[in-house]
Amino acid sequence: MAKTVKDKYVFSFADGKADGDESRKDLLGGKGANLHGMTKLGLPVPPGFTISTDVCTHFYANKKTYPKVLDAQIRAALAKMEKSMGRKFGAKTNPLLVSVRSGARASMPGMMDTILNLGLNDATIEGVIAESKDARFSYDSYRRFITMYSDVVLDIHSNYFETALEDLKHERGVELDTQLSAEDLKKLVTDYKQIVRSNGKVFPEDPWEQLYGAVGAVFGSWMNPRANTYRKLNDIPEAWGTAVNIQAMVFGNMGDDCATGVAFTRDPSTGVRKFFGEFLVNAQGEDVVAGIRTPQPINEESRQEGAEKLPTLQGVMPKAYAQLVKVYQRLEKHYRDMQDIEFTIERGTLFMLQTRSGKRTAQAALKIAVDMVNEKLITKSEALMRVKPEQLDQLLHPCLDPNAKKNVIAKGLPASPGAATGQVVFDPDTAEKWANDEGKKVILVRLETSPEDIHGMSVANGILTARGGMTSHAAVVARGMGKCCVSGCGSIKISYERREFSVGNLIVKEGDFITLEGSAGEVILGEVPTIAPALNKDFQELMKWVDDVKQLGIRTNADTPHDTKVARSFGAEGIGLCRTEHMFFESDRIDAVREMILADNTEGRQRALDKILPMQKGDFKGIFREMKGFPVTIRLLDPPLHEFIPHQDSELHTLADKIGVTFDRLKRKAESLHEFNPMLGHRGCRLGVSFPEIYRTQVRAIMEAACELMKDEGFKIIPEIMIPLVGDWRELRFVGDYCREEANRVIDEFKKQGVKGVQYLVGTMIELPRAALTAGEIAKYAEFFSFGTNDLTQTTYGLSRDDSGMFLKDYLDAKIYERDPFASLDTAGVGRLMKIASEEGAATRPDIKIGICGEHGGDPASVEFCHDAGLDYVSCSPYRVPLARLAAAQAALRNPRAPAKKAGAKGVVKTLSKKPGKALGKAPAKANGKVAAKAKKKAKR
Amino acid sequence: MAKTVKDKYVFSFADGKADGDESRKDLLGGKGANLHGMTKLGLPVPPGFTISTDVCTHFYANKKTYPKVLDAQIRAALAKMEKSMGRKFGAKTNPLLVSVRSGARASMPGMMDTILNLGLNDATIEGVIAESKDARFSYDSYRRFITMYSDVVLDIHSNYFETALEDLKHERGVELDTQLSAEDLKKLVTDYKQIVRSNGKVFPEDPWEQLYGAVGAVFGSWMNPRANTYRKLNDIPEAWGTAVNIQAMVFGNMGDDCATGVAFTRDPSTGVRKFFGEFLVNAQGEDVVAGIRTPQPINEESRQEGAEKLPTLQGVMPKAYAQLVKVYQRLEKHYRDMQDIEFTIERGTLFMLQTRSGKRTAQAALKIAVDMVNEKLITKSEALMRVKPEQLDQLLHPCLDPNAKKNVIAKGLPASPGAATGQVVFDPDTAEKWANDEGKKVILVRLETSPEDIHGMSVANGILTARGGMTSHAAVVARGMGKCCVSGCGSIKISYERREFSVGNLIVKEGDFITLEGSAGEVILGEVPTIAPALNKDFQELMKWVDDVKQLGIRTNADTPHDTKVARSFGAEGIGLCRTEHMFFESDRIDAVREMILADNTEGRQRALDKILPMQKGDFKGIFREMKGFPVTIRLLDPPLHEFIPHQDSELHTLADKIGVTFDRLKRKAESLHEFNPMLGHRGCRLGVSFPEIYRTQVRAIMEAACELMKDEGFKIIPEIMIPLVGDWRELRFVGDYCREEANRVIDEFKKQGVKGVQYLVGTMIELPRAALTAGEIAKYAEFFSFGTNDLTQTTYGLSRDDSGMFLKDYLDAKIYERDPFASLDTAGVGRLMKIASEEGAATRPDIKIGICGEHGGDPASVEFCHDAGLDYVSCSPYRVPLARLAAAQAALRNPRAPAKKAGAKGVVKTLSKKPGKALGKAPAKANGKVAAKAKKKAKR
Repeated sequence: MAKTVKDKYVFSFADGKADGDESRKDLLGGKGANLHGMTKLGLPVPPGFTISTDVCTHFYANKKTYPKVLDAQIRAALAKMEKSMGRKFGAKTNPLLVSVRSGARASMPGMMDTILNLGLNDATIEGVIAESKDARFSYDSYRRFITMYSDVVLDIHSNYFETALEDLKHERGVELDTQLSAEDLKKLVTDYKQIVRSNGKVFPEDPWEQLYGAVGAVFGSWMNPRANTYRKLNDIPEAWGTAVNIQAMVFGNMGDDCATGVAFTRDPSTGVRKFFGEFLVNAQGEDVVAGIRTPQPINEESRQEGAEKLPTLQGVMPKAYAQLVKVYQRLEKHYRDMQDIEFTIERGTLFMLQTRSGKRTAQAALKIAVDMVNEKLITKSEALMRVKPEQLDQLLHPCLDPNAKKNVIAKGLPASPGAATGQVVFDPDTAEKWANDEGKKVILVRLETSPEDIHGMSVANGILTARGGMTSHAAVVARGMGKCCVSGCGSIKISYERREFSVGNLIVKEGDFITLEGSAGEVILGEVPTIAPALNKDFQELMKWVDDVKQLGIRTNADTPHDTKVARSFGAEGIGLCRTEHMFFESDRIDAVREMILADNTEGRQRALDKILPMQKGDFKGIFREMKGFPVTIRLLDPPLHEFIPHQDSELHTLADKIGVTFDRLKRKAESLHEFNPMLGHRGCRLGVSFPEIYRTQVRAIMEAACELMKDEGFKIIPEIMIPLVGDWRELRFVGDYCREEANRVIDEFKKQGVKGVQYLVGTMIELPRAALTAGEIAKYAEFFSFGTNDLTQTTYGLSRDDSGMFLKDYLDAKIYERDPFASLDTAGVGRLMKIASEEGAATRPDIKIGICGEHGGDPASVEFCHDAGLDYVSCSPYRVPLARLAAAQAALRNPRAPAKKAGAKGVVKTLSKKPGKALGKAPAKANGKVAAKAKKKAKR
Repeated sequence: MAKTVKDKYVFSFADGKADGDESRKDLLGGKGANLHGMTKLGLPVPPGFTISTDVCTHFYANKKTYPKVLDAQIRAALAKMEKSMGRKFGAKTNPLLVSVRSGARASMPGMMDTILNLGLNDATIEGVIAESKDARFSYDSYRRFITMYSDVVLDIHSNYFETALEDLKHERGVELDTQLSAEDLKKLVTDYKQIVRSNGKVFPEDPWEQLYGAVGAVFGSWMNPRANTYRKLNDIPEAWGTAVNIQAMVFGNMGDDCATGVAFTRDPSTGVRKFFGEFLVNAQGEDVVAGIRTPQPINEESRQEGAEKLPTLQGVMPKAYAQLVKVYQRLEKHYRDMQDIEFTIERGTLFMLQTRSGKRTAQAALKIAVDMVNEKLITKSEALMRVKPEQLDQLLHPCLDPNAKKNVIAKGLPASPGAATGQVVFDPDTAEKWANDEGKKVILVRLETSPEDIHGMSVANGILTARGGMTSHAAVVARGMGKCCVSGCGSIKISYERREFSVGNLIVKEGDFITLEGSAGEVILGEVPTIAPALNKDFQELMKWVDDVKQLGIRTNADTPHDTKVARSFGAEGIGLCRTEHMFFESDRIDAVREMILADNTEGRQRALDKILPMQKGDFKGIFREMKGFPVTIRLLDPPLHEFIPHQDSELHTLADKIGVTFDRLKRKAESLHEFNPMLGHRGCRLGVSFPEIYRTQVRAIMEAACELMKDEGFKIIPEIMIPLVGDWRELRFVGDYCREEANRVIDEFKKQGVKGVQYLVGTMIELPRAALTAGEIAKYAEFFSFGTNDLTQTTYGLSRDDSGMFLKDYLDAKIYERDPFASLDTAGVGRLMKIASEEGAATRPDIKIGICGEHGGDPASVEFCHDAGLDYVSCSPYRVPLARLAAAQAALRNPRAPAKKAGAKGVVKTLSKKPGKALGKAPAKANGKVAAKAKKKAKR
């Protein structure tokens, strides 16, 4: 389509010719663009015209008025329709009736949808009756029009009209609308107009007034609350605006040689390649939706349970069906995607009313994408863009049986996807007992979780917490375990004492069944059947293409050999974050950890650390083995020490007895470790500054593990030792110096045993604003950076992820935050710091390796930001790895990087310096152009 | 002095000629530069030379070796000395003896100080005896030399030598050194050398070896731990290095016509213009310090208590004294400052050994500066640079009687200056009872303080806390009250139960007296007399000059009319931060505040707020009246709501009874408000988003106060409504919109009563990194910015000021932080964010008013940063205002701003747009040049 003519606001389509085409969704909206497209393809589309989105923009920028030239353009377009149809708008004979439909760039529930039969009034109805020879049909159309028009244009609730209809049926002693006579319906039209008047409005008889009323209603609905909410949820800019489509009416309800239906060119549930749809004889589109009659299958392949005996379209209107098959094949080939089509058959003639890319399940999306590549309909690159990364979640986790009923009793945050059903337990010990000893499925319900709950979390099917956000302990650990979790569900009130929780008046006791839906944050009463995930051949195929395209490395956050193995199976190319503190909580070592904390001096701490050393070494060896050949980044101890000591007096008493110190001493220690703001307290490398022996011991464990594997199992691993919470280069120098000293000491010890060539890196988290702002200095002492965007988000916003649940909703409601910044990276603030740090870090050390290991590493938009920002890798929890890989591939297709930005990078795994542009097919030409320009710009930098 | 010749390392001075002068302290050190200077002035200085600081730098850069050319240069310089003195180094007859002294750019305790009599050995001693005809003097000099040399060069503790000396006195049956004979001292020399040998060392007989040993010891001492500590404490860069001064010996101990002494050209305690000093007949410099004999006054003006009968130098050596008077007058006029001089009289002849600017008390500094201006010795600008801003603290607060003894039992952080003595109390209620009802002086001792302790703090003489840093609640509130406070004193263990605290084994019970010294952080057992502050005429004079020079506005942080009044009396030009929450704690309204918090809905909250409104309005009117004519910035409610609710069950019970709700409900509410990290929680404008009625009520109170004052008292005030904790422009838009709406509503209400022209501003704190990073957007909705650098430091560092006390010491010890970032602004991180915010804020809104209201506003270095960064004002606690004014004036002298950067700024008080460069006298030419260049650069920007 050529460049838009200035001041052209109305675009006609009729008789195989159209002013627009499907490329101009921005101007014509999705529905409009495809009507133009189908018309150009020569398909049977009733003629019409589209009022462009520019008019919507003008409307809101100019106190809800239209451009001056609009009226003339509309009248010209309508004249074209009249000519094409051989009818006249508002004429008594052969009157032209039209439909008015909204059509935004993206499908937008909540907006005014459709007004049919516009143009009917007490004069034109005569023409319709004369032409159709069916007074009943005519009056039925008229009263439907008044109902729709009054509802959406005059703001009179349809209930008034429904009641009048019901009253009349009652009066006539009939049950169905269809049992009313033409006379009844005619009376109803009169009654309806009276209803309008009694609501203080007047039903316009002038078709032009009707038309402008409808157009204004479409534009007005762009800003209605439901539309606003939908846009907010789906990141649709207000500025896009909507278009209005005005099209000649065709009727599927003029008799038994008429029909209306919807169809998909492939099965939207499974993706299987079969023509799939349903229809109703003698009906208008809204009847299919209303569900008064059971729709019939269009063909045998579409036959569903309960519709065994209904005749198919293929059977009853074979000619129209054959035409429809040709049309759908043409459409799929043209649009190169599965289509969702609407059609109407008027007295045996097929008309196409809509085509659009069909919504589909994750499974279908995957299958269709892979199939279409095999059918040579699309390229592999296009296939990669057809699957939403978020959809992979559905494939990796169990989901609720979509046909099962569910009684949602509360909603929390969608902290970790999947679905799980089980019996409620309120503490980790019970969870363990019930699950392990009694074989029960359990759901662990806690106010919030802490590292002490890990054993309970690991046996639970799902986790529900009353507090905590998307990056709370529960959320992070659950995602790591690939387990369903709903967090921050404030409406449940838990009483540990009474072993129950309540939601409003409902009480759920320990042992009762509940079900969680982690992707929606739903808490459901009772058991709901779930469907197990299946990673099929299509998935494997698609992920192979992903790896050929993506330029960003995808690592995982994993703390155990098990998690590491899972992550490898999902394609992780290394560990970006191995948190050593989780190992500290294991029951065989927590006592030694506590002994270390209680020690009054360095010697005492070292004694305890000596007990921990061999255990940590064992952990590391296990992880290194699973990640053979890939880098492993190990973060030294991060949380404040008080996290390892119980908080309740009763627990302190038990612990005191167990480890043989007095309660008083233990209590005093616990008190002395208390912090007002633990997030900003004595943690991370601050521990390393105060107690170097802790980090030294950890470094020794890491290096001995690496050296022993080299010696005994003959394979090399390059550990990346990561120092957390650095805010000043002197901090990193201080800690880094002694870590390197200890590492080199171990290497020297093993050299004497003939073990040679062991290497390691020392780097730091960038998780404080000051670290980002002084990254140029810090890079002198760091061989790699890893953005800890959880903490960086907390400190940049001054927002505790554990406490933000209290008011985040207020922020989303007031549109202050578009998305939870802990779920999706804030590019303006946190992202700006990341860019400063990346640029200034690389200026100091050109071969610095830069990654991200916050929870954002598993968010597609954030992955794209990281790709664009030139990071080397993102790291996310194991179950997010496939999603991140796909997001990275899509980012690379949108904005490929200049070749081999950092070929010389130290210790970089081969997967990290992937060559770009090895495109597997052609991406749309336009996108490519933009992308190439960007890449050039980047290469220059 | 001309540019240094390359590779010239040794600089001679002798016979009225010198290679250097006093401008080259960088090269020659302070002592050396002045020796060169005095020589050039023609004063009687023994000849010598200086080895430059470049050698020290070379020494450390080259594995402790010297430049190759050094030796030849030293030998040449020594030859010049020999020629001047007519003596020969190492010769048996007429030997040249020398002193070796360190001399860094700044005076540096902790370094090697002095070796006298170098050149003595078993051969040269004969020459000295022959010449002095005094064997006793000669051997005494020899044994002193061995002691000093062994101690500082050979690292043999002087105890060994003292013991030998004592043993010999015991053997001889004498008590004083002076009672030993020449023979005894000769024997001692032999014994001393034996001691050296038995320590595995050899005392060098070769004078050149002695000389190099001494020079090496000086350079070596530059890096000894004491010197390092001193440098760290005084911000002296390691790279400066030290020089070494080698000078011909003159002897004050060769008989009764010899003397040695020190003098000040003015009284260093009071600043009074009188020649002031003391001396000893027949003594070497060290004897004056050792205090064996009571020093004699040099004149009648110098006579002290206890020295009533001692003859003066003027009396016993009138000729030398007259010469000394001429010298001191010459020196003061030349150096244009009070001098601290050292002299020796050898056989009636005066020699000058040192001159330097004398250390002085704050009072003296002020008086000398003002007097010297009146004497036309210095300009007003120079006078302003002569008083350290920190010294004003001493003038504004009581201080300990310097002559009183003090038993320091613990040290904490110097949280708020001044000194206070009183009886220990452990809770605010007892404090109030004892102070108000019983008229006792009390010191409030708490683990930490909270807003609930305010009534006890306000009656206490001083406050001592075991926890919390420089910006803890106790520290901030105490500084605001101008009250002495020692915080974070971890070594005291408080037991509220036993009503006592312990330090080690010492127990201090309630009612016991202690004394606090807030500038040093000292806790002293018992009562120590204090001296009340006195703001004299000199202070008023100097501060007048300050205001003529400074370009930065100085506001105050004040929450009450009383504080406001105090701040005005100290010259505050407005309020930069009025915290409304402190008003919430007053006993007549805290119940209404709690009622508001407990309310379950907006209506309940509004009912409670309606009770608070008139009280807050009253507060504001009081403050506005005190600040008549100046701007007042009022911050809307900031702290999380749980701060207003007690935390102990017992207190909750009491409160529940009092306000008539059940304990359970109160407890549940308290629990639901609990936060893990309150600093990052539901506070600041987040409260304004969740509960708009709170801010609306506050805005109404502010605006009604302003309007009523205009109506009833006829004066106008422009309130600046400040919204805290903004992190996103949408947050500010949301809250700012309804605040403006409410403010305009009040203005409209009063317009109807004929009140016209009321104005106000709405602005925001910039206290989160994200606010700084997105300030360009935020400025669209803010008429002013105020940097809340307390919170900005916390979030930029990810460091809780309340918790950092636990490990800050480790950081300072490891030199990771040079200074506590909460005390002095971190320019690399926090400062960078401030610059980003200032620049991008001003780019959006050129007339935006920008200030700072964190505690840094009272820190001189931070004030200078704010001046340089182009801020409009700083705001600090009332008692810091004079200090901030002086610091601002000094900053303006160092780096004057381009004229009238923002003449058109909205609502700016006249003091803010001061014209620069209205210099009151000439600053030193060099500084001026640099400054002008900078100003140009700034003007360009």
